[in-house]
Amino acid sequence: MVNLSDKKPVHQVVIIGGGFGGLYAAKSLAKANVQITLIDKRNFHLFQPLLYQVATGALSPADISSPLRSVLSKSKNTKVLLGEVHDIDPKAQNVIVKGESVHYDTLIVATGAKHSYFGKDNWEEFAPGLKTVEDAIEMRRRIFMAFEAAENESDPIKRQALLTFVIVGGGPTGVELAGAIAELATKTLKEDFRNIDTSETRVLLLEGLDRVLPPFAPELSQTAEVSLKALGVDVQTKTLVTHIENDIVTIKQGDEVKEIAAKTVLWAAGVKASPMGKVLTDKTGVESDRAGRVIVEPDLSIKGYPNIFVVGDLANFSHQNDKPLPGVAPVAMQEGEYVAKLIQKRLQGETLRQFKYVDRGSLAMIGQHAAVVDLGFIQLRGFFAWFVWLFIHIYFLIEFDNKLVVMIQWLWNYFTRNRSARLITGKEAIAPIPIANNQSHTPLVTKKPLNV
Amino acid sequence: MVNLSDKKPVHQVVIIGGGFGGLYAAKSLAKANVQITLIDKRNFHLFQPLLYQVATGALSPADISSPLRSVLSKSKNTKVLLGEVHDIDPKAQNVIVKGESVHYDTLIVATGAKHSYFGKDNWEEFAPGLKTVEDAIEMRRRIFMAFEAAENESDPIKRQALLTFVIVGGGPTGVELAGAIAELATKTLKEDFRNIDTSETRVLLLEGLDRVLPPFAPELSQTAEVSLKALGVDVQTKTLVTHIENDIVTIKQGDEVKEIAAKTVLWAAGVKASPMGKVLTDKTGVESDRAGRVIVEPDLSIKGYPNIFVVGDLANFSHQNDKPLPGVAPVAMQEGEYVAKLIQKRLQGETLRQFKYVDRGSLAMIGQHAAVVDLGFIQLRGFFAWFVWLFIHIYFLIEFDNKLVVMIQWLWNYFTRNRSARLITGKEAIAPIPIANNQSHTPLVTKKPLNV
Repeated sequence: MVNLSDKKPVHQVVIIGGGFGGLYAAKSLAKANVQITLIDKRNFHLFQPLLYQVATGALSPADISSPLRSVLSKSKNTKVLLGEVHDIDPKAQNVIVKGESVHYDTLIVATGAKHSYFGKDNWEEFAPGLKTVEDAIEMRRRIFMAFEAAENESDPIKRQALLTFVIVGGGPTGVELAGAIAELATKTLKEDFRNIDTSETRVLLLEGLDRVLPPFAPELSQTAEVSLKALGVDVQTKTLVTHIENDIVTIKQGDEVKEIAAKTVLWAAGVKASPMGKVLTDKTGVESDRAGRVIVEPDLSIKGYPNIFVVGDLANFSHQNDKPLPGVAPVAMQEGEYVAKLIQKRLQGETLRQFKYVDRGSLAMIGQHAAVVDLGFIQLRGFFAWFVWLFIHIYFLIEFDNKLVVMIQWLWNYFTRNRSARLITGKEAIAPIPIANNQSHTPLVTKKPLNV
Repeated sequence: MVNLSDKKPVHQVVIIGGGFGGLYAAKSLAKANVQITLIDKRNFHLFQPLLYQVATGALSPADISSPLRSVLSKSKNTKVLLGEVHDIDPKAQNVIVKGESVHYDTLIVATGAKHSYFGKDNWEEFAPGLKTVEDAIEMRRRIFMAFEAAENESDPIKRQALLTFVIVGGGPTGVELAGAIAELATKTLKEDFRNIDTSETRVLLLEGLDRVLPPFAPELSQTAEVSLKALGVDVQTKTLVTHIENDIVTIKQGDEVKEIAAKTVLWAAGVKASPMGKVLTDKTGVESDRAGRVIVEPDLSIKGYPNIFVVGDLANFSHQNDKPLPGVAPVAMQEGEYVAKLIQKRLQGETLRQFKYVDRGSLAMIGQHAAVVDLGFIQLRGFFAWFVWLFIHIYFLIEFDNKLVVMIQWLWNYFTRNRSARLITGKEAIAPIPIANNQSHTPLVTKKPLNV
């Protein structure tokens, strides 16, 4: 802690974004002699790695969210400002929130990324992505409405399309969504319907590369694929999606083009930088990569502006490996903490050596009995990996808000196979559905194979 | 259980509505030799007595909801149909769901009530009511957005209006909302803001009669008022609301007319019958009361149609006291169970004596340390009443879905004063807010009294 003279005004740090990067920067500066303003357009931090559990009805949005004011209530040097930053003025050192200027001495931009359709933005309507709480509620609505509509559909072809779920992208989110939907269909919902047999649900996981979970070790990709297949997921690798429209997904496998009739298509394939990336390149001349991520210096600042930092998914940090660090929570956390430390060092007239990411491993949940964990020096799979996955997620959740309740909810769900948060809510919850002859109680058996 | 001949088709029971009345009827018929179709426009049963806890950020919607299919999954004679009934044909014995007919031998109508503005429907925009999950999310958004906007408002008059919450109606819902908002302001949010002192929040509870909780014993109304005042709630009885518009509530107390400047106005005053009431009167000629409730016979059937029953908030049952039974959960549950029993008796060629409601008491929660419970033979208040309140609610919740988690969440909230579900979600969550000079960290102190 440095003892500034009475005359000198307190150093103003402005942080844009309350995700992992921004929030860890703010928390690390909680006792520093600086004045922090954390600006976010939402009033809560979202624990995004568990968003797929909301989308599949296992957890509620509040279970994986912490009010930013509550997380930072004890940081008396920090104020939270609810609002969206549309512009910055790097000369005057201001960020602009709804026409008003907020001055900074140091700026940390941590606005993250959103999902990207690789230029095919019209696919979004048919294949929603999973970045916000609203996205998760919409996915949940589509998933559970598909089963409801299938129950009331007498045409077997249409019913088959209603019971077909396509997940585009075999990264952790895609794998976790596919596993959760397969478990829903074969276990949770098994006794709930009278006209359909939900275990006949088809879940297809499409991945462009030659294996699922590309960032993991190849053996774990193999394990994940075996576990997914055991749950009934149809895993299709080396598969490119060429078109999505009107409940038809067109794919390309080698030279072969196929069509899949599916009412529910979920997007877990690509991300691009949030709009603040473009603001930064326009206003500071800093370069960005093809996904719009800002190229940062070895200390996470941007070229020519040592007092502007970019952390998390918005940053392209390529000084450690040949390729940029991945857009995952641990990278954002470590970057936020690094910048907080650097700011304090600078206030003492010192500096810090360049940022270095310490990779503690990757992990993905496949189902209630299986997960894969790649800690680098050791690879785990099966029930033990599931337990490690649970422990690590709970540990980081608890750091925010003592979410003991989530652990109990999970254990409860685990032992009862319950997914009690499967509400269909929102305006379209009361959408019209055609109903079939309600006298028929014969379970549906369809032998026709899917055309994939 | 009656042994019907092989030739005779199974008796078809159609239940419209999965609230307390419809669901208890279905559950009571689970082992009867009938075929049940339960039709609801939502896929879940909502535990409405706890909806105010969602509106004030203590619980998530899923905590107080149970998927109807899941509650009824073991009732193999029951199918759940997601859809809205728009019409019935009592001659052909069909209900019409989106153009399709569903045949019944016995019909139970349990579509409940919605909130009513006594003909002033344009008030709804300014003063939302609390009947659905979406209503609760909207109330939650308004409540927490008001604090956010106040934090960023530099005009003290506007800030005062932002920190003023008016609850119209002093029944259980109004009392519970007022107590919860007062606790939010003075306890939960106390450390969260930097520019405002949330303990200066004004919560006004307006009641037309001479005391709050009119259905309770007068001494308990007195206790409730004292407890509310101790929490800082400004209780105004004998107060009529004459106008609501543009953040101004106009009230009349005796001959005096006053205006209250309040950004957040919540409606807990009146209810009217759901639209199925009018369908029934149009199609069967049955009479209804001023609130649109259907006048039922002593056995809960309607005049001239012994195979059509109305239960719950939609029914006006006046055969026991001078006035109709109140629109509360225990009445609906007992009516649903009675009709289920009567149907089974009739199938055996027997009958049942007229319905009689057994009043086991009323209860209302005021705050974390206080509740009032009126069991008729004994009246409870304070912490012990709070505990009884908790126990009774948990007991009925558990009956549906083993909601142990809710109890743990509550105990957790109780001991930590936590309200972690205070997310601002939905489209307008990112609404523009004017921001004040962010350098000011002086807590706001306003001495100007409210003009009420």
